[in-house]
Amino acid sequence: MKRLHAVQQAVGGHRQVGALLISEPANIAYLTGFPGADSALLVTETRAYFMTDKRYADDAAAFFRRKSGVQVLVTTHRENRFDLCKKKLRRHRIRRLGFEKTSLSYYTYEKLAAAVGRRCLVGCTHFVERFRMYKDPGEIALIEQAIAVNEKVLRAVKQWIPQVRDERMLAQRALDRMQRLGASGPSFDPIVAAGTKSAIPHARTGTDPIRKQAAVLVDMGACYEEYCSDLTRTFFWGRMTGFFKKVYDNVLEAQEIAFSLLGPGTAAKTVDAAVRRYFKKQGCLQHFTHALGHGVGRVVHELPSLSAVSTEVLMPGMVLTIEPGLYYPGEGGVRIEDMVLITENGYRRLSRYSRERDDMRIL
Amino acid sequence: MKRLHAVQQAVGGHRQVGALLISEPANIAYLTGFPGADSALLVTETRAYFMTDKRYADDAAAFFRRKSGVQVLVTTHRENRFDLCKKKLRRHRIRRLGFEKTSLSYYTYEKLAAAVGRRCLVGCTHFVERFRMYKDPGEIALIEQAIAVNEKVLRAVKQWIPQVRDERMLAQRALDRMQRLGASGPSFDPIVAAGTKSAIPHARTGTDPIRKQAAVLVDMGACYEEYCSDLTRTFFWGRMTGFFKKVYDNVLEAQEIAFSLLGPGTAAKTVDAAVRRYFKKQGCLQHFTHALGHGVGRVVHELPSLSAVSTEVLMPGMVLTIEPGLYYPGEGGVRIEDMVLITENGYRRLSRYSRERDDMRIL
Repeated sequence: MKRLHAVQQAVGGHRQVGALLISEPANIAYLTGFPGADSALLVTETRAYFMTDKRYADDAAAFFRRKSGVQVLVTTHRENRFDLCKKKLRRHRIRRLGFEKTSLSYYTYEKLAAAVGRRCLVGCTHFVERFRMYKDPGEIALIEQAIAVNEKVLRAVKQWIPQVRDERMLAQRALDRMQRLGASGPSFDPIVAAGTKSAIPHARTGTDPIRKQAAVLVDMGACYEEYCSDLTRTFFWGRMTGFFKKVYDNVLEAQEIAFSLLGPGTAAKTVDAAVRRYFKKQGCLQHFTHALGHGVGRVVHELPSLSAVSTEVLMPGMVLTIEPGLYYPGEGGVRIEDMVLITENGYRRLSRYSRERDDMRIL
Repeated sequence: MKRLHAVQQAVGGHRQVGALLISEPANIAYLTGFPGADSALLVTETRAYFMTDKRYADDAAAFFRRKSGVQVLVTTHRENRFDLCKKKLRRHRIRRLGFEKTSLSYYTYEKLAAAVGRRCLVGCTHFVERFRMYKDPGEIALIEQAIAVNEKVLRAVKQWIPQVRDERMLAQRALDRMQRLGASGPSFDPIVAAGTKSAIPHARTGTDPIRKQAAVLVDMGACYEEYCSDLTRTFFWGRMTGFFKKVYDNVLEAQEIAFSLLGPGTAAKTVDAAVRRYFKKQGCLQHFTHALGHGVGRVVHELPSLSAVSTEVLMPGMVLTIEPGLYYPGEGGVRIEDMVLITENGYRRLSRYSRERDDMRIL
């Protein structure tokens, strides 16, 4: 319950709110260890109420009996979670309730406002997500497990490329293997982009054939016990063209530049800026069309973000992707995506799959 | 583009809005055939604008080039989808914009309101979802495929029960098999509840052992090309207890009562009420703790709902679950869940897996 206590302290020290209503399932699971679907968590400086319906009530009661400090409240047709909220706010004489702006739908917001009063509500962004940025050793171990599965699948994918008919078949095989290696699922639908389709950063995996003398971009992630991975490699089947080699080396160099800047205290946006500066010098900045990276944890895209508009500063415990890419419409593209952990002294690369250009070649 | 035209007609005939901003990915995919992630669809009576960022822009442009009537707009850091909305509303002189209350977060609502003005906005619920209730033959065929996979997996699950260690191992094997049978994934995390845990309607699949002389409730669904299935069977390993037999027969009878009422023109809530009336007569109403059923399609829970508060009337083309259950804390529970299609003359059961009590027995 250490995580919950940290959030309770933050609520206690907050100037604008006396309690926080958490509705994002990943946040609820992170703070309590109990799956957050169809439930809400009301947190004050000293109390925590887990609100769920009859379907989950017994299970939740059994789970939280062993933990101190979380009380289970059961919602009914007559008394929903917002009515329960209102009651508890009154009881603890709390006047201002924070809610999660990004996870509450407008529809649910209206219901909440109807129960507790619009004036009582304070919209919060990333209240719990900012805690989730800093991974503890247990979380890092799970992320490393997810990466281990991911890399085993990537190794298999490389061998399957000359055997499969099309993108979809490759993706399907990868999903099968991921499952059998103990992943609870993919962290997102795998992207397999063959040939000139690799020029589309987020291509839809389809029935495009996988042919010789062409690149195959594979971007995939695994979930392992609630934690995600996210890795990309761009393979080439046949003798690499000069164009591919040049683009690959450029992307790899950009990734090296990013790595060299990683460490506690660095502003996320300066890493993104350094890569853009390098690409500009190479005359290819217009072909880098997305952000440099993002945090990874319970959700495959979380804080911090590494882009021109990032406000986060890198700190120990953050796990993120570094994924420069260059995309030439009609010709092809290359992306290299690895995962790193920010440490006390700098960073540690969590993904170990080779990034050598020659290792991307399939004969 | 028939589906899109139907929504355009509804927008044209709407009293309160001149355009609709669709943000729910399943709705966008349903109307356009293009995946709706990270995008939005602005629909007027005569126009449709698909707004997405650079990552998907080329892919979307290529996709919509073949279709008439949808224009792709690319968002940038400087001009987001709400700015683009504002521009188009001005151009078409539209004063009131409907938005999807349930899919837009409060955070995104604020951004939208900042761009187009709060007064211009009209919150809508289930605008497109109400169209999605009526499945066309193509959709029904995909749902039947998902059910076929689901039933094959259930047959295997029955055989695995005496072989596996615990709930999780059974769920994992089921997921593997589902994948290999061509499902794109599960439609939700499978529920495997062994022994007295079957008394928890939505139990968390865990490490509880699967033992002889006990029930195993298995609730699972498959996704097949974007369409879902959702089926439950409650097996019994060993010689069935009198308690189990009695509860099973009660649940089965309740399901029969529900089936007998299905057909076009029936209010969804009357079906739920009939089942509750039956359980009340049997003195076990307090053990039926959830709704009777729900629609299934691109999302595993969609309209119509079959509960005491449902407002929908059953109509041809609707696909739904009928899933009565009885749960006795500390003892065990039984749920039987099948999927049906409402037809012109009545209904057709889409799931064919046996519901006979004797067929639930594992020796």
